[in-house]
Amino acid sequence: MAKGASISGFPEWLPSERVVEQRVIDTLRRVFELNGFIGIETRAVETGASLLKKGETSKEIYLLSRLQEVGHESDTPIEDRLGLHFDLTVPLSRYVVEHSGTLAFPFKRWQIQKVWRGERPQEGRFREFVQADIDVVGNGDLPEHYEVELPLVMVSALEQLREFGLPKATVHANNRKLSEGFYRGLGLTDIEGVLREIDKLDKIGADEVARLLVEGCGANETQARACLELAELTAADGKELAEKFDALCTKHGISTDSEAYALARQGLDTLAMIVDEAARIRPGSVIADLKIARGLDYYTGSVYETFLDGADSLGSICSGGRYDNLASQGSKRYPGVGLSIGLSRLVSYMLHTAGAHASRISPAAVMVAVWNEDDRPAANAIANQLRSRGIAADVAPTAAKLGKQIKYADKLGIPYVWFPAAASEDGEAKGDEVKNIITGDQCPADAKSWEPDTVYARQTVNL
Amino acid sequence: MAKGASISGFPEWLPSERVVEQRVIDTLRRVFELNGFIGIETRAVETGASLLKKGETSKEIYLLSRLQEVGHESDTPIEDRLGLHFDLTVPLSRYVVEHSGTLAFPFKRWQIQKVWRGERPQEGRFREFVQADIDVVGNGDLPEHYEVELPLVMVSALEQLREFGLPKATVHANNRKLSEGFYRGLGLTDIEGVLREIDKLDKIGADEVARLLVEGCGANETQARACLELAELTAADGKELAEKFDALCTKHGISTDSEAYALARQGLDTLAMIVDEAARIRPGSVIADLKIARGLDYYTGSVYETFLDGADSLGSICSGGRYDNLASQGSKRYPGVGLSIGLSRLVSYMLHTAGAHASRISPAAVMVAVWNEDDRPAANAIANQLRSRGIAADVAPTAAKLGKQIKYADKLGIPYVWFPAAASEDGEAKGDEVKNIITGDQCPADAKSWEPDTVYARQTVNL
Repeated sequence: MAKGASISGFPEWLPSERVVEQRVIDTLRRVFELNGFIGIETRAVETGASLLKKGETSKEIYLLSRLQEVGHESDTPIEDRLGLHFDLTVPLSRYVVEHSGTLAFPFKRWQIQKVWRGERPQEGRFREFVQADIDVVGNGDLPEHYEVELPLVMVSALEQLREFGLPKATVHANNRKLSEGFYRGLGLTDIEGVLREIDKLDKIGADEVARLLVEGCGANETQARACLELAELTAADGKELAEKFDALCTKHGISTDSEAYALARQGLDTLAMIVDEAARIRPGSVIADLKIARGLDYYTGSVYETFLDGADSLGSICSGGRYDNLASQGSKRYPGVGLSIGLSRLVSYMLHTAGAHASRISPAAVMVAVWNEDDRPAANAIANQLRSRGIAADVAPTAAKLGKQIKYADKLGIPYVWFPAAASEDGEAKGDEVKNIITGDQCPADAKSWEPDTVYARQTVNL
Repeated sequence: MAKGASISGFPEWLPSERVVEQRVIDTLRRVFELNGFIGIETRAVETGASLLKKGETSKEIYLLSRLQEVGHESDTPIEDRLGLHFDLTVPLSRYVVEHSGTLAFPFKRWQIQKVWRGERPQEGRFREFVQADIDVVGNGDLPEHYEVELPLVMVSALEQLREFGLPKATVHANNRKLSEGFYRGLGLTDIEGVLREIDKLDKIGADEVARLLVEGCGANETQARACLELAELTAADGKELAEKFDALCTKHGISTDSEAYALARQGLDTLAMIVDEAARIRPGSVIADLKIARGLDYYTGSVYETFLDGADSLGSICSGGRYDNLASQGSKRYPGVGLSIGLSRLVSYMLHTAGAHASRISPAAVMVAVWNEDDRPAANAIANQLRSRGIAADVAPTAAKLGKQIKYADKLGIPYVWFPAAASEDGEAKGDEVKNIITGDQCPADAKSWEPDTVYARQTVNL
C-alpha cells in the first residue's frame, strides 16, 4: 500500500546514520546536564499570534488544520490557528511565562527537539530539523556572566563531538548595542534594516550589501562603507577590540562624548568581558567579530555565531544571543540568553563529510543461532540470560542454514554468533560456543558469565 | 510579549515531571536495544494519500499549509498535501518500502516519537502525545514466533517501569482470523463492521453493542448475542481456549468441517501458541481475550491490548497486532507485527495516580557558592573540575547572601552546596568545604576527588 516517497526538505536517516544522530544527542544532553541545565520538552505547536510576532522566520510557518476543517480554514483568524514552532526560543519564552509561578529563576534549560520551517523546497534546506538549545532565563534581570558561560558550554559540547569528526569550533560574538551605537553615531536611524543587510555579508558580498544599505536603509556611500568597515573588525581580546573600535570612531567622527558612543561602549564592554573571560578559560574558543548580526530581531545585546575550521560552506552551526524583551507578563520581564545548535545539519556534515559511521547497525553484540525451530525456546533463554546482564542480544529469525544465519548477523554488524550446545553435530555433549565472526575466534562460553571483548561490546561511532 | 496560554489536548510537563517522562523513555529504549531492536526516527509528516488510507484514525489528521498558502489550501488535493502522522506504524511501513534495498530483513525497530491526532478538543484526550513502538517487519514472510516475542518484550519493558509506580501489566490477545471465522460461521458478512462495534464493548456495554450489530451490521438478535458470547471468552492456555471455542461453535451450529471454522482455527492455533509460550516464559503475562478487536483496520491476525491491574479506567496502554498488507511494493509484501505504548498517558498515570516524582528538579548534584562576583572564576573552575569527573554541577547565579544562594539550590533540589576556600571568614587558610543541605552534614572536600553519597549522586524517580 505505502509507496516509498521522500519529501524534499524532510530528511530521514538510515538506521546506521541514526546511530550517529542519537549519539550526538546523547552527548549534548550529557554535557548540558553536567552543567546543571534542566531538560524540558514543549508541545510542537504554538498559536499563530505567538509565532507571527517573532523574527524573520515568521514568514516560514506551517499552520495546521483538522481534516474536517478543509475548505473552512479561513473561518479562523491566523492568530487563533495553531502552527508548528520554527525554533525553540519562542516556545521557551511562552513556557516560562506560563509556569513563572513554579519555576526557579534563573531558569537554565536544555531542549532538543524538531522544529519546522514552512519554506519553499530548495536545494539543501531542511523544512524539518532538530535543534539543540540551551538558554538561561531570568526573572526581572539576568547577570551578564551567563553571556560568556553559555557559549563556553556550547564550545565544550562541540568539543565532545570532535571524536565524531567535527572540526574545531570557534564562537564569533558581537553585541547589538555596539553595532547600533556605531550606526547611530554615523547618523543612521534604520538600525534593524542595517543589521538585516549586514547579516547577508557572507552570502552576497560587500559591494552588494553597500548597495542595499544605500538603496534601502537611508545610508550614503560613506556611511555604507563605514558600516562595512565595522563589520570587518575582529579581535581576540578586549584591549584590541577597544583600540580598533575607538580608531574607527575617530576616523568617522563619532565623539566619545556622544550618546551613540555611550551605547556602543556598553555593548563593547560586555563583548570585551566575553572574549577576555573565554580566552582565560578556553583560549581561542571565542573571538569578537563585528559582522555577526543575526537575522532574528528579538536579540538585544550579545549575539553569537559558531563556525567550524575548514567548513565555511556550512555557515554558522550554533547561533544565539541575548534577548531582553522576548517574554513578559504585565510589567514583568524575563530576559534570556541562549544558543541553538542546528543539529541535523551538523549530523549531515559528520556523516557525509567527516565520514562518521556506526560500528554496527544493530545494538546487539551477539546473535544466538537457532538449529531448528524446536530449539528456539533454548535460544531465547540464552539471549535473555545475556540481556539480564546488560548484553544486547538478538536471536536468529529462522532456523535457516547456519551460513544464512551468520549472513544476517553480518549484515547487521553483530560481531558475535552464539552456538547453543544443541549444536554438537557429532552427538558429543559439547557446551555452548561463541564465535567472533569478524576475527574468526571461536571459544566455549557460558551465557551466565561470558563477556564480549570491550572493543565489540557496544555500538560505537567511528571515523 | 509571549502570553502564557495552554492549548487543550497539547500536554506539557513541568521540569520535575519531564524527569519522569525522560526516565521512562530511557528505560524503554534500553530494553528495546537489549532485545536487538534498531532505533529509527521518521519525519513528522506523511502525504495525505498515505495517511488517508489507514484505519479509523484517518478522520483525525492535521494537515499542514505554509503561511503563504493560506486561502489557497484547496488548490492542492488532500492526497498531495502534507499531514502530521497519527501513529508510528504507517510511517514505518512507508520507511520500510522506501529503504527496502538497504535494510536487513526481518527489520526489528524501536521508535519513540510524538504523534498527533486532529480531534476535537475534549476532556482527557491528547491531540499531541508520545508513542513508544516496537515492530518487526519481514520481506515477503514473517515467522510466527515474533507474535509472542514482541508482546513479551513489551511486558518486560513495562515490568521495568514498575519501580516508577506502574501496576502489573497483562497483555490481552486475540486473533482477527478467529473472530472472522466465527462471524462468518454465524452467517455474518460485514466483518469489519462487527469488529468495529465489538471494539466499543468496554465503552458502551453489551446491550448497546448488540443494538448496533443488529442495526448496522446485518445481524439478527441471535447472531448479535453469539458475537457477544465470543467476546466474553477468555483463556489462560491453549487447551482451555480450544475447548471453550469449540463448545461455542457447537452451540451455534458452526461445523468443524466448514471453511469458516478452518479460518477461525488458523487464528486459534496462533493464539494458543502465543498464550502457551508466554505462560512458559513469563506466567500470567498474556491471556487470550476474545473481545479484543482493535479499531485500526490494518490488522490481519494477532491483536493485542494491555491493561494494568487496578487501572481499568486507563484502558489499554499498549496495543498492536500483526498486519500483513500494510506495506507492499509491486508484488512484494512486507508483513509486520508490532506494539505501541501510549507513553504520555502512562506518564500521566505515574505522575498523578502512582505519585512518581523526581528526586530533584536540577540534574546538578552540587551548587558551588559564590562569595562575590570576583570569585566567580574560581567557583566556575571548581564546577568544571567536578564536571570533568562526571559530577553534574551548577554555580550560584549571583553572589547574593549565602542564605539566598542555598534557597536557590534547595528550590532546585540540589543536595550539596560547595563552599570555596575563599569562604574562610576568619582569614585562616581554610580549604573547600561541602555541605549536604538535606542532612546538614558539612565536611572538607577537594574538587579533584570528592564524590557525592550514592543516594544523592543522581536525579532519580521516586514514589
